[in-house]
Amino acid sequence: MTDPHARQAELQALFDSYVDAGLKLDLTRGKPAAEQLDLSNDLDGILEGFYLLQDGSDVRNYGGIVGIPEARQLGAEFMDARPEQVMVGGNSSLNLMYQYVEHMMSIWGTNPIKFLCPVPGYDRHFTICEHFNIEMINVPMFDDGPDMAMVKELVSQDAAIKGIWCVPKYSNPTGNTYSKETVEQMAEIAKVAGENFKVFWDNAYAVHDLVEKGDVLASILAAAETAGTADSIVMLGSTSKVTFAGAGISFLATSISRLKAFEEFLSDQMIGFDKVNQLRHVRFLKDSEGIKAHMARHREIVKPKFDLVLTKLEKHLAGKNMATWNSPRGGYFISLDTRPGLATTIISMAAEAGVKLTPAGATFPYGRDPDDMNIRLAPTFPGLGELESAMDVFVTCVELASLNAELV
Amino acid sequence: MTDPHARQAELQALFDSYVDAGLKLDLTRGKPAAEQLDLSNDLDGILEGFYLLQDGSDVRNYGGIVGIPEARQLGAEFMDARPEQVMVGGNSSLNLMYQYVEHMMSIWGTNPIKFLCPVPGYDRHFTICEHFNIEMINVPMFDDGPDMAMVKELVSQDAAIKGIWCVPKYSNPTGNTYSKETVEQMAEIAKVAGENFKVFWDNAYAVHDLVEKGDVLASILAAAETAGTADSIVMLGSTSKVTFAGAGISFLATSISRLKAFEEFLSDQMIGFDKVNQLRHVRFLKDSEGIKAHMARHREIVKPKFDLVLTKLEKHLAGKNMATWNSPRGGYFISLDTRPGLATTIISMAAEAGVKLTPAGATFPYGRDPDDMNIRLAPTFPGLGELESAMDVFVTCVELASLNAELV
Repeated sequence: MTDPHARQAELQALFDSYVDAGLKLDLTRGKPAAEQLDLSNDLDGILEGFYLLQDGSDVRNYGGIVGIPEARQLGAEFMDARPEQVMVGGNSSLNLMYQYVEHMMSIWGTNPIKFLCPVPGYDRHFTICEHFNIEMINVPMFDDGPDMAMVKELVSQDAAIKGIWCVPKYSNPTGNTYSKETVEQMAEIAKVAGENFKVFWDNAYAVHDLVEKGDVLASILAAAETAGTADSIVMLGSTSKVTFAGAGISFLATSISRLKAFEEFLSDQMIGFDKVNQLRHVRFLKDSEGIKAHMARHREIVKPKFDLVLTKLEKHLAGKNMATWNSPRGGYFISLDTRPGLATTIISMAAEAGVKLTPAGATFPYGRDPDDMNIRLAPTFPGLGELESAMDVFVTCVELASLNAELV
Repeated sequence: MTDPHARQAELQALFDSYVDAGLKLDLTRGKPAAEQLDLSNDLDGILEGFYLLQDGSDVRNYGGIVGIPEARQLGAEFMDARPEQVMVGGNSSLNLMYQYVEHMMSIWGTNPIKFLCPVPGYDRHFTICEHFNIEMINVPMFDDGPDMAMVKELVSQDAAIKGIWCVPKYSNPTGNTYSKETVEQMAEIAKVAGENFKVFWDNAYAVHDLVEKGDVLASILAAAETAGTADSIVMLGSTSKVTFAGAGISFLATSISRLKAFEEFLSDQMIGFDKVNQLRHVRFLKDSEGIKAHMARHREIVKPKFDLVLTKLEKHLAGKNMATWNSPRGGYFISLDTRPGLATTIISMAAEAGVKLTPAGATFPYGRDPDDMNIRLAPTFPGLGELESAMDVFVTCVELASLNAELV
């Protein structure tokens, strides 16, 4: 076995060479690569002058907040819901989430509001809470979903807890999918929670499998209908990582009565979302089979990138007790845990060597990772060559930082 | 001269025949007709696979709340501002207005807020105020704009007044354009108003001339820069009535520092607006000359409709002292004042005879027209034949209602 001090010196020299190389690499955000976007170039021009719907209405003109029937049907297949439960929005499901929370704020009233946040999770969910002064409470994430015993205990003890953020399939960043049992328990949580409790079910990676037979997520809205709690479910999704990241369409599904209330809320601020783009997406993706075929083409581009990252981690870090990570079957991220207290150091070392990573703590409410150990890797955007260079830097930083801490 | 009772009987018979005919006509909202929308069908497909900007960025991917540089340039020409003062939004300038008011609500704080509303005005502006519990104060509209003496007096006396809604060109519904003097006075109003006062300058009809040489509106942002009050100006506009009503792009312009603050506010709820559609609009409209040529084609379709309405009004109501109306040089509406107290009656009579009109009072805050006399006519959407039928019904209702009231 190499002497640790010799290995430390070797890694330091390697690190210095990376710094000298002046790299500029970015593993921060889950952005599709240009080749993935190319898969949807036919969206533009697909209408060929035909702008009328089956019901005779003209998508070019004003009106219709819930979206065009054809897109609601597509959304229903995408979200595992019924068309009449689905609203089709603009290019941002994040915006729908914000608007829904804003809508609820007027119903929840002026008392302090709290949300449960399975951690690690998605920073933009946490930003919405911070915006509305909603207190966030961390809940541990297990392989089969959030710690449901803890969720149940917390909501039954504190009526100020009005919501929970979930990314139920290929969770951001942990990559796990909630089990059928977790989905069923989550569907029923409103029964023990205070009034107007909402499960924000951000199914961002609904169709984003990295393997041919991806994870199967049970329909929470169907389970909630059976349990009589459909009003508590707010499902979300979008085509942002299906077609164009910045120019897709978004979906929201809930009970029919809650959808109606949300539509009325939105009618004070808009006349309707972009229906022309909704029709483009219907013509382009067609139905769930069309989406499946399209996502298989994404997989061909994305899978080798995940494989590269995992191979690098395996080769350089396996068996060293310096990091643990997941091998996701879908989604956009690999979540890596360093030894406690080292994530900030590793991320700033990588930055020094020209590799930008998601800021330390970003996957936790208030940007505070209590153990300072979670790092989110986003492999989709760079090309394979750049990704390889970035990973060489990254594994060097992990090992060097771990040794530096060990040999102090 | 016909005996009024005989004329009343004659009109009643005519009215009854309209009721029997079971018409279904709609003059409610300012929607473009299908022929107008057809003018922009080339938007779809115009990108031909080219999604990169001059600066190398890819419009298909995430990011960039202020919009693409090319569209900010187009917006600057559209809004009479500089590109760095312009944000390009999604398909709804109304949504930008709502978001800007929401942004300001957190700055204005929890004290009661009031807005000035030149009347008659645009109902959706008033809806935003109602949504945020902002008290609205009516200000009379003159030919050259709002009563500026009253505006000045009110804002200098009451620091709770934090905003004013303006449609400065071809105002909705009165069709008048603010004079250079009014624009200059409005630009300086922040000097006498309380802190963080905002002029919401909704230039919805910036390029919507019905005559070849349309009204010229002075740039309020330029005037405000001279006056040192640029922070108080929020200009808005959109291509909703230029390209596709429901799938255009929107513009907001203010001082650079205020734009930055608004961008930060929006960053909590979105990653960016649809940049692909922004690029479509740049390629399609090109520049202010391109917009001008395009709007000339709109004019060819819209002008005969306004002429028809005005001819009908002139033929059937002129000299009878039953109504006054404007002959707008642009915009989307004809504003008609009945004798006091008759608007509601006339609108409900027209509805009975199958002609839907904007609800009585809609052009006033809280839906309350103090004199119950303003009716907004929107001639653009129906075909000429339908419009003629609708106007026949309308003028009959005005004359009959006036006679009924007179002969009681």
